[in-house]
Amino acid sequence: MDLNVYLSGEIHTDWRQRLKEGCDAHNLSIVFTSAVTNHEASDSAGDILGKEDDNFWRDHKSAKVNAIRTKTLIENCDVAVVRFGNKYKQWNAAFDAGYCAAMGTPYITLHDEDIVHPLKEVDSSAMAWATTPEQVIEILKYVLTKA
Amino acid sequence: MDLNVYLSGEIHTDWRQRLKEGCDAHNLSIVFTSAVTNHEASDSAGDILGKEDDNFWRDHKSAKVNAIRTKTLIENCDVAVVRFGNKYKQWNAAFDAGYCAAMGTPYITLHDEDIVHPLKEVDSSAMAWATTPEQVIEILKYVLTKA
Amino acid sequence: MDLNVYLSGEIHTDWRQRLKEGCDAHNLSIVFTSAVTNHEASDSAGDILGKEDDNFWRDHKSAKVNAIRTKTLIENCDVAVVRFGNKYKQWNAAFDAGYCAAMGTPYITLHDEDIVHPLKEVDSSAMAWATTPEQVIEILKYVLTKA
Amino acid sequence: MDLNVYLSGEIHTDWRQRLKEGCDAHNLSIVFTSAVTNHEASDSAGDILGKEDDNFWRDHKSAKVNAIRTKTLIENCDVAVVRFGNKYKQWNAAFDAGYCAAMGTPYITLHDEDIVHPLKEVDSSAMAWATTPEQVIEILKYVLTKA
Amino acid sequence: MDLNVYLSGEIHTDWRQRLKEGCDAHNLSIVFTSAVTNHEASDSAGDILGKEDDNFWRDHKSAKVNAIRTKTLIENCDVAVVRFGNKYKQWNAAFDAGYCAAMGTPYITLHDEDIVHPLKEVDSSAMAWATTPEQVIEILKYVLTKA
Amino acid sequence: MDLNVYLSGEIHTDWRQRLKEGCDAHNLSIVFTSAVTNHEASDSAGDILGKEDDNFWRDHKSAKVNAIRTKTLIENCDVAVVRFGNKYKQWNAAFDAGYCAAMGTPYITLHDEDIVHPLKEVDSSAMAWATTPEQVIEILKYVLTKA
Amino acid sequence: MDLNVYLSGEIHTDWRQRLKEGCDAHNLSIVFTSAVTNHEASDSAGDILGKEDDNFWRDHKSAKVNAIRTKTLIENCDVAVVRFGNKYKQWNAAFDAGYCAAMGTPYITLHDEDIVHPLKEVDSSAMAWATTPEQVIEILKYVLTKA
Amino acid sequence: MDLNVYLSGEIHTDWRQRLKEGCDAHNLSIVFTSAVTNHEASDSAGDILGKEDDNFWRDHKSAKVNAIRTKTLIENCDVAVVRFGNKYKQWNAAFDAGYCAAMGTPYITLHDEDIVHPLKEVDSSAMAWATTPEQVIEILKYVLTKA
Repeated sequence: MDLNVYLSGEIHTDWRQRLKEGCDAHNLSIVFTSAVTNHEASDSAGDILGKEDDNFWRDHKSAKVNAIRTKTLIENCDVAVVRFGNKYKQWNAAFDAGYCAAMGTPYITLHDEDIVHPLKEVDSSAMAWATTPEQVIEILKYVLTKA
Repeated sequence: MDLNVYLSGEIHTDWRQRLKEGCDAHNLSIVFTSAVTNHEASDSAGDILGKEDDNFWRDHKSAKVNAIRTKTLIENCDVAVVRFGNKYKQWNAAFDAGYCAAMGTPYITLHDEDIVHPLKEVDSSAMAWATTPEQVIEILKYVLTKA
Repeated sequence: MDLNVYLSGEIHTDWRQRLKEGCDAHNLSIVFTSAVTNHEASDSAGDILGKEDDNFWRDHKSAKVNAIRTKTLIENCDVAVVRFGNKYKQWNAAFDAGYCAAMGTPYITLHDEDIVHPLKEVDSSAMAWATTPEQVIEILKYVLTKA
Repeated sequence: MDLNVYLSGEIHTDWRQRLKEGCDAHNLSIVFTSAVTNHEASDSAGDILGKEDDNFWRDHKSAKVNAIRTKTLIENCDVAVVRFGNKYKQWNAAFDAGYCAAMGTPYITLHDEDIVHPLKEVDSSAMAWATTPEQVIEILKYVLTKA
Repeated sequence: MDLNVYLSGEIHTDWRQRLKEGCDAHNLSIVFTSAVTNHEASDSAGDILGKEDDNFWRDHKSAKVNAIRTKTLIENCDVAVVRFGNKYKQWNAAFDAGYCAAMGTPYITLHDEDIVHPLKEVDSSAMAWATTPEQVIEILKYVLTKA
Repeated sequence: MDLNVYLSGEIHTDWRQRLKEGCDAHNLSIVFTSAVTNHEASDSAGDILGKEDDNFWRDHKSAKVNAIRTKTLIENCDVAVVRFGNKYKQWNAAFDAGYCAAMGTPYITLHDEDIVHPLKEVDSSAMAWATTPEQVIEILKYVLTKA
Repeated sequence: MDLNVYLSGEIHTDWRQRLKEGCDAHNLSIVFTSAVTNHEASDSAGDILGKEDDNFWRDHKSAKVNAIRTKTLIENCDVAVVRFGNKYKQWNAAFDAGYCAAMGTPYITLHDEDIVHPLKEVDSSAMAWATTPEQVIEILKYVLTKA
Repeated sequence: MDLNVYLSGEIHTDWRQRLKEGCDAHNLSIVFTSAVTNHEASDSAGDILGKEDDNFWRDHKSAKVNAIRTKTLIENCDVAVVRFGNKYKQWNAAFDAGYCAAMGTPYITLHDEDIVHPLKEVDSSAMAWATTPEQVIEILKYVLTKA
């Protein structure tokens, strides 16, 4: 059994890295995918098509270019991991979770206990809530190898 | 032409009321629906099935009971209006927007200019971004009557 | 808000009746539907098309005739209530729950605590687990009227 | 022609083993998949995310973690074989059958004659009813090689 | 419970009439729909758009105009009754049955016993095989009223 | 039988009016819908949300607001009539035809013979090609009344 | 570009063989699939699960076992070729065409001119009508190589 | 990450060639597909099945044969690039864009600024508007490599 796992959300900590390394250490057959996580590159993606003076349209263009990547990757994944950090709004992570829920794609949330209440709708459609990348690694290992 | 419009997001201001009254004033043929917006009733919806000591499971139970309502209403709506206020995380609003995007249901966002950047993914899949309920009323009036 | 609620499972107790009467007492706008619950009529539904000597084919014919009804009703419902009693196998109830899960139709399970373990897969995809019809009535009342 | 075959249901006899060995003996091009069939591992899958005191929530967590695996495998299979043994409730097997029926995925049931009547709804949507793993092997061999 | 029933196939006997009258006699809440059953009108439907010299294109145009009607009606029906008479090829009836099968729409076949063998694929996806309109009436009556 | 018919394309001639009046004259049970056909209102629809200096974004905003209307109407229609006049590009009409084709919604094209060649892909997925509104009226009359 | 082509219909002439050899001769990258075309093997497929005295049920069982194969292959194909010979009813071929039409799978019909009229509904949803296997080979060659 | 990119529209300039070469130069993992772009071959595709005197039917036959190719390729692509040149109607390009929009397939438009207004509906559903093949190359490079 192979899995295609999409990693959504927080880009300011090393959770993606820890997750990949942990799964590699167990030789799990997983392809990980992600949005472009370089913040500046992501914000300026639309500039390729010409600069915009208005911030709304600059964001709009960049978000659409990024969506070419993320939409394709989310629709192709078997499972998503959606990470909510302690800073920033991360509405795009919640948006991805809603997208997965509507598609019937299972997802795992990854966040601290102190934001359980505001994430209750997002968590209630998830297949699991983890607080550490290591727990996610254990779940993926269980899913893939405990036949 | 009739419309079924789902109102998602912020529950602490009167935007739903202003929207409904404004549309009524124009005799627009719209049915508005919403999640349960009474905060306490919503948080304790799961208590009907027995109290929980653990906060996570209390939220989980309540969120699932609420989802019986919201999932049915979102899947039946023609258009959603998703409101992001200046307080609170409102991840459920972004979740609803992602759900609509995956379903192909058009939605309008309603929020101030200062949160344009964190909402860029949510806005880029929306059909319109409004800053006041009155703009949403004008759009619905246009959509319904400007044949 | 109206609901179309499909009642699946146990046919030997009065839970359907209690549910309907309880919802009527609250004037809830619900249409309840069900398989044919007259056991003998249901078992002999296929006899209309000619008697069968072989029990397997008699059951097969009747089950298919019944499916004309149940498939139509399940696909049209907004919510299902799936009841597991203390007797009988009730595999058809679990089958209906799996059908709803695949369709994305929310369902509520109704069963005693002592069969929680064998029903864990069925319950984990449900939106709620109730132990009494009265709890289901309260949930439906909440869903329909607590706007 | 290759087939991806999901094996659902009873975990206390060697039917999966016999099926795989029999198909191997005929060099059939089949990938077999399954839920985690180690009963204890399956029941404790959710403990990875923290222990639960309440049995319902322990089952709930484990069932959801297991569903990451089973949902992915069922949605990817071409055919399912659903086995009902003489012991246990096996509502999850009937649930899987209902899921397949709604998805339009063909499935074969495997059970003794004495439970034909309670399984009539499950059997009537199946493509075949077998009483021995050897019959299933013959069917798969026919499907794959009798061009 | 109401039903929308599409009547497909043979146009040279009075089976549609008998079916409608029989259901009316039982006050069943059924809307019956059908292709245009006037043979000449149906064959010349495309002539509205200009005459064709070539028979293939005349048939092609008329068949497409008729499909505006039949596609809409088949996709809206709850159940189809597909009638195979003893004369003519009636490939359009088998085509409609295949269309229903792919859509997951239940259908009942209506034909004599002597064509069971050539209709085995069509019958094996049907919910019932009847030999007389009266049997179909009894089934529809059972489905609608035996709650 | 009722029909919901969406009228797409050319806005500078009276074809919509002739079509509606002709169908009314035959008492056909049809609801006709359309995009906003007032050219100026349509072009400035986005101005409700604030003026744009850049023509591309002004068009973008207006087109999205208009899509709230058109997407809803096209997805709800049974049949579309797509009109290509002799002037203007009318790429939106071809876009609507492609949208219908992908949705499986039958559509009728309405255009002169001299543009048959550039419209061959659009026509080849259509159910009929008409050259006058009167022919479309005759087809709709046939579809609705020639049972 | 590769194609997966399903060959449906007539089993008493060598059209499948001619088609495969002709495509091989052009080195076209095509995987051809088919139902079991050995008539006796196909008719007795259900006997694996126990003999039936009643012809209807024998056909029923065999047809369902065969459908495990055909349903999987049809749903996986890119294009179907549906052959109607001059003998036999071939309702299964028309059934397959209807199935393809509902799935949106393109198909080519292959039949003589004298049965154009009874096949008009089947042909009108087809992408092409050919009278010889050689024409089908030319079309497949064009589709695959004329970039 | 790999991409399957469908190139739709204008066939009289070298934009396809420039796009492919540019992506090759960056070693991007892309499979490009296209309709048959040899104009004469495309127009005469239907002649394989017999010549037609009537231009409409000649175009109709050829367009349907071409659709076997284009429908398969569009439904398999991850992203489409839709090119509108300064000459010709190119309704088929707008048709493809509408098809993609209904399928939820992201597409990029490629056209000069002077046709922004007539393309506003097509552009407003696109993920990006480019004016040169080089911009499209940059976007594809960003999407594929800027992880």
